[in-house]
Amino acid sequence: MTVSPFDHPYLSGLFGDTEIASQFSAAAEIETMLAFETALAAVEAREGVIPLDASSRIADVLKHFSPDMPALREAIGRDGVVVPELVRQLRRAVGDANDRNVHFGATSQDVIDTSLMIRLSRIRAILDKRMRDLLSDLKHLEQLHGANRLMGRTRMQAAIAITVSDRLRAWSGPLERHADALLDCVFPVQFGGAAGTLDAMGDKEAAAVRAGLAAALDLADRPQWQSQRDTIAGFAGLLSLITGALGKIGQDAALLAQDGSEIALSGGGASSAMAHKQNPVHAEILVTLARFNATQLSGMHQALVHEQERSGSAWSLEWLLLPQMAVATGASLRLGKSLVGSILRMGNS
Amino acid sequence: MTVSPFDHPYLSGLFGDTEIASQFSAAAEIETMLAFETALAAVEAREGVIPLDASSRIADVLKHFSPDMPALREAIGRDGVVVPELVRQLRRAVGDANDRNVHFGATSQDVIDTSLMIRLSRIRAILDKRMRDLLSDLKHLEQLHGANRLMGRTRMQAAIAITVSDRLRAWSGPLERHADALLDCVFPVQFGGAAGTLDAMGDKEAAAVRAGLAAALDLADRPQWQSQRDTIAGFAGLLSLITGALGKIGQDAALLAQDGSEIALSGGGASSAMAHKQNPVHAEILVTLARFNATQLSGMHQALVHEQERSGSAWSLEWLLLPQMAVATGASLRLGKSLVGSILRMGNS
Amino acid sequence: MTVSPFDHPYLSGLFGDTEIASQFSAAAEIETMLAFETALAAVEAREGVIPLDASSRIADVLKHFSPDMPALREAIGRDGVVVPELVRQLRRAVGDANDRNVHFGATSQDVIDTSLMIRLSRIRAILDKRMRDLLSDLKHLEQLHGANRLMGRTRMQAAIAITVSDRLRAWSGPLERHADALLDCVFPVQFGGAAGTLDAMGDKEAAAVRAGLAAALDLADRPQWQSQRDTIAGFAGLLSLITGALGKIGQDAALLAQDGSEIALSGGGASSAMAHKQNPVHAEILVTLARFNATQLSGMHQALVHEQERSGSAWSLEWLLLPQMAVATGASLRLGKSLVGSILRMGNS
Amino acid sequence: MTVSPFDHPYLSGLFGDTEIASQFSAAAEIETMLAFETALAAVEAREGVIPLDASSRIADVLKHFSPDMPALREAIGRDGVVVPELVRQLRRAVGDANDRNVHFGATSQDVIDTSLMIRLSRIRAILDKRMRDLLSDLKHLEQLHGANRLMGRTRMQAAIAITVSDRLRAWSGPLERHADALLDCVFPVQFGGAAGTLDAMGDKEAAAVRAGLAAALDLADRPQWQSQRDTIAGFAGLLSLITGALGKIGQDAALLAQDGSEIALSGGGASSAMAHKQNPVHAEILVTLARFNATQLSGMHQALVHEQERSGSAWSLEWLLLPQMAVATGASLRLGKSLVGSILRMGNS
Repeated sequence: MTVSPFDHPYLSGLFGDTEIASQFSAAAEIETMLAFETALAAVEAREGVIPLDASSRIADVLKHFSPDMPALREAIGRDGVVVPELVRQLRRAVGDANDRNVHFGATSQDVIDTSLMIRLSRIRAILDKRMRDLLSDLKHLEQLHGANRLMGRTRMQAAIAITVSDRLRAWSGPLERHADALLDCVFPVQFGGAAGTLDAMGDKEAAAVRAGLAAALDLADRPQWQSQRDTIAGFAGLLSLITGALGKIGQDAALLAQDGSEIALSGGGASSAMAHKQNPVHAEILVTLARFNATQLSGMHQALVHEQERSGSAWSLEWLLLPQMAVATGASLRLGKSLVGSILRMGNS
Repeated sequence: MTVSPFDHPYLSGLFGDTEIASQFSAAAEIETMLAFETALAAVEAREGVIPLDASSRIADVLKHFSPDMPALREAIGRDGVVVPELVRQLRRAVGDANDRNVHFGATSQDVIDTSLMIRLSRIRAILDKRMRDLLSDLKHLEQLHGANRLMGRTRMQAAIAITVSDRLRAWSGPLERHADALLDCVFPVQFGGAAGTLDAMGDKEAAAVRAGLAAALDLADRPQWQSQRDTIAGFAGLLSLITGALGKIGQDAALLAQDGSEIALSGGGASSAMAHKQNPVHAEILVTLARFNATQLSGMHQALVHEQERSGSAWSLEWLLLPQMAVATGASLRLGKSLVGSILRMGNS
Repeated sequence: MTVSPFDHPYLSGLFGDTEIASQFSAAAEIETMLAFETALAAVEAREGVIPLDASSRIADVLKHFSPDMPALREAIGRDGVVVPELVRQLRRAVGDANDRNVHFGATSQDVIDTSLMIRLSRIRAILDKRMRDLLSDLKHLEQLHGANRLMGRTRMQAAIAITVSDRLRAWSGPLERHADALLDCVFPVQFGGAAGTLDAMGDKEAAAVRAGLAAALDLADRPQWQSQRDTIAGFAGLLSLITGALGKIGQDAALLAQDGSEIALSGGGASSAMAHKQNPVHAEILVTLARFNATQLSGMHQALVHEQERSGSAWSLEWLLLPQMAVATGASLRLGKSLVGSILRMGNS
Repeated sequence: MTVSPFDHPYLSGLFGDTEIASQFSAAAEIETMLAFETALAAVEAREGVIPLDASSRIADVLKHFSPDMPALREAIGRDGVVVPELVRQLRRAVGDANDRNVHFGATSQDVIDTSLMIRLSRIRAILDKRMRDLLSDLKHLEQLHGANRLMGRTRMQAAIAITVSDRLRAWSGPLERHADALLDCVFPVQFGGAAGTLDAMGDKEAAAVRAGLAAALDLADRPQWQSQRDTIAGFAGLLSLITGALGKIGQDAALLAQDGSEIALSGGGASSAMAHKQNPVHAEILVTLARFNATQLSGMHQALVHEQERSGSAWSLEWLLLPQMAVATGASLRLGKSLVGSILRMGNS
């Protein structure tokens, strides 16, 4: 049952990214949903919205809570979201005395979107580190081979000689801008209640709880945004810009590797029919992942047409697209580093 | 490590399709790749291309062969395809005397594309059956409620009264055409060798082996098509037409369910915040899956630009897209049947 | 005011296609809309739905009718379709006695979709002819150079030698299948009235009028399909398959032209900076047009989610996409013929 | 010959935007290309790269230069870009003595990309103004009706009452963020010469000329970026975020207009079949334009895979997509303002 190569027992050896993918496991989603519910109870207790001992009880129980997964699976097929059943299980675990204090004032989208923000924020940190690494590798490559001559090519035709530095700067320029843009990304807490109005508590408490929740979960504070999907679509756009920049690198490397006179690569894939071939597999897959993300991005922007207070249809379209875009980006950075690291020589002195 | 909702422990309860997904499991891919290698050896022996006892030995060994999965995973990260390592394992298992007779004259793409064709052919049969079922359910619904009045709506405004039959025929018309188109799909064997020329054997043997292989695997015979991806892109287009037709049904049902005066549905999803709501979840997800496939289809058509004899980049883009499109289609038919089955009343008498 | 290169005073010299584009001019749309209204009146008169002399009067007036274009432009900004204002102008021209017999029983979508079907049917004929021509040119090329050797390339690496025939058959195979598929396309008349039920006349008359209209306009007869957009999306898919097949040819040619040892091309574009370059412009643009149509196709499938009896939103999305897809396909066939015709030599003897 | 509704004599009355479209006319492209060549000569003369009198002569001639359009049209069909022929015409007009000082050191991409940046910068100003206007209109609407009650709806089902303010803030929130992002956009001059290395002049002169050119044309200075398309793809992403935000407004308005109990709109489109209908056309077209831009964006990201120093194929794909995205965005803001302005009442007191 492994439909996506990102999840596949062996295809993931090429396309996958263990570190990013782990943020989209059921375990990670549940962990962050429980973090939301725990933090919510703590903050609500502090603000006097629920009793203090309810918060303690909730914290104790959720620390060791493990959901009934088959029940979650069955419920989502009916409810469209996992939260109603998860909350039901949590309330039962917490016990009658405090059950209504679990998830108090919150709704499914608060839990799921906030859980996603926590995990995207972690993913941002992973991507940031990898982009800095890759930029540093490119700088190192430039130090080694930057002064070499390379045939500049326009419209796939030899034009005039350039230096390897010229080419490498065209590779690193976009990545530098995207690394900066990653740092500018904002991941806001989502907290709005049934229809975004936090109707279960007073305005003052609502604002205080939301701010407290943001602080506890290390997210930005922002008024509920459950039908405003631009932050998520914008992040997806950045992911696709990153894979696009790496796709250009991959395409250039595959073209250089054609006759190999201007590049020497270590490694390279085997062929089942021709022992002599050294295929520039990682270069090619960078192109694949760029085109994959460019494809998915369209759907993320379709999902901006998010009707009324919550669109089940547009919202769940994001679920089918964004996780794979993030893993594709992680894989692209991994393969990009591998490709750059495999360049033994570039250009000619 | 479940990036895709189609593979996810609980999200697959909504988006998944066990029956279709099983055709994209590693096990199914390996089973059909072994079927290819076994049939290849048998046919090649019959045509005198390899010895008869080599074919027997290969059949015996492959019947019980179980691959070293971690080795496959590692190899694909290097080779970009799983076949070289799989063939290496097969040859080792078959033993020195016959190792060169395993996979004789074939290349990675022959194995992988033929394996895909076998599985798409099975999927076609599954989809065909479900579409006939759904069309029969729609006919039944028409018998029950077809004469009822329904407000016809254009540009989301009440126009003039129509009958429930009118609406249901707009639902079933495209599905009838797509069911016919499914039957017209052709799934050809792929057999071309290293660069499509079957250079390892004579022209006469090559044609006979390919025809025999097609017959053995219940596929159509066609000259190698490894860089001609139109059959696959065309099939993807049909998948998206099917989910599009169901998306229209879902959108209509969700709009009808708004005030509920013209439709009565059993079931419907729970809300974690509002006990009174009955969400038309399956209707909404039909829209989601339609938009998902419409998104993916673009990438399948990008992959038509498949350069030279084999594009690693364009080819593997298909792997990231097509399996999920097929599962989305299966899920859409499953949810469509569920939605139609949940209609207690439609229109007003 | 030429936003699209397909319409642009000079960019259309590369991307445009005069013959296909002329079918999307305002003049061609109006001509075919008037053909619909004229045929409708004639058939309705024959079936006794409107008086015979009304039909004669309508035919006389419409033969020489020229619309008030600024009024059409203004009206569409308000009505979303041009038909209400056009019909108002037609009725005024026909005069009081017969005004209600103009457009009797029809609605905007009947006129616009039928007009589109007439024009797509003409476009099919144009494309069919060009594809047969191109296939014949490819056959001729094979006769001249088919026996030459060409380096087979997989994953952009030299693999083993093939013949030019091998490559050319990979070029022509998809085009042959698409030429056959073009012949199978069905272009049905659309006639449904306000909400698809032809409520303005009896069932028997309605069926007879629709059949007569189809015959008069040389279209297929089919029950109204105004919310069933699969025929249009399917045609768009075929357009994108054609440009995709040509995109592969273009990509291959651009790669061959890199060092030019295996291809000799006449012509080729100039560079403003380098007099020595001969850019394989037409080959490149074939790739561009393939990727363009692959992009647009996604939107055509999004438009399958066509809610209720008529979706203003999904319907007009088609208008923004399909005409350009058709022109891109025409341009691609034009450039493909030019590219194939410019091949002086392919492969090496 | 009006393939695109954005250019169409009457369809542009709905989809078009005269102000934005005028920036994509042939006249505007030529005007800005001439501005580039004039500024280039002036700056190069100031830096001693070409003689001062050459610059004066070029300025004089270009001030009144009018190109031979049919020759441009013919040339682009051969060269793939208009610049070689345009420069040839300019040189002839300037005369033998100074012909080589026209376009000195520059290449096609310098002219075309810089021309585009100038025009995108103007478009940014237009969009910025319209977004501020629209946000102000939304604020006004909130002052009038913000305190009214509106049924909050999740999954297209009535949830709990919210206020009109709640809904309006979900409409304006993304637009506020996008208005800020518009101000952050950077439009850099492109100046690199044949292969990006400004090989025709010394490094010091090259940097000075580029900086001078940027200052003269009111663009940012940045090292040549001709194969780095992220700035353009990023801008396209912002356009699609804007139309997506407006698409949500349109979808909400169309849903509210269904029974009309919670919204009263002035105007609305006519139907050719039903005089009683008032279609919320502008609301629907906002959805259309959102889905249109979401579709196009995918192709803009495909174009990030821009091989080597200049990809004719990826570059010209942008030409087919970006202008229409900009006009769609302009039209969306125009229709959004019209829609908001037509709201007579929203919610119930």
